[in-house]
Amino acid sequence: MSIEPQKPNTILVGKKPTINYVMAALKLLNEEGAPEVVIKARGRNICNAVDTVEMLKNLFIKNLVIKSVNIYSENLDTEGKKKVSAIEIVVAKG
Amino acid sequence: MSIEPQKPNTILVGKKPTINYVMAALKLLNEEGAPEVVIKARGRNICNAVDTVEMLKNLFIKNLVIKSVNIYSENLDTEGKKKVSAIEIVVAKG
Repeated sequence: MSIEPQKPNTILVGKKPTINYVMAALKLLNEEGAPEVVIKARGRNICNAVDTVEMLKNLFIKNLVIKSVNIYSENLDTEGKKKVSAIEIVVAKG
Repeated sequence: MSIEPQKPNTILVGKKPTINYVMAALKLLNEEGAPEVVIKARGRNICNAVDTVEMLKNLFIKNLVIKSVNIYSENLDTEGKKKVSAIEIVVAKG
């Protein structure tokens, strides 16, 4: 089961088990030689995105570098009244 | 109902409604003149912490500055086998 990256090297974390996204990140970093991977999530999935990075670091890539962590709001409607929180975490191998 | 800050100027976000933590942050920043506030959360509450900062910025303090966002793991047991993800967001008035 592969997680289709949104933009190249971007993984949009949803409700699937964390390990699915960890494997997708490992594939990009190890097999496809991506210089960095963007782990992105919205709303309730933000916790799963942080878990993905921490599991990746704790269990698989000890020298994983967290290059940046950005939090922001995305508009859910055209008037910009309804917003959802989002996170983008950029990681790379140390 | 007041949210007792953990260390001075630190708000540990739990399962209460987001607005409770937004009000606690506003109190620290406006009434108590805190130079910066640390919004902290663990596990499933990480989403609520990000929502707190985004609501604070979108609805109350338009020039809120997000000074840093750190994600890390905390040990849940003495052997360090069981870990939980955590986030610390430092905000200040622009």
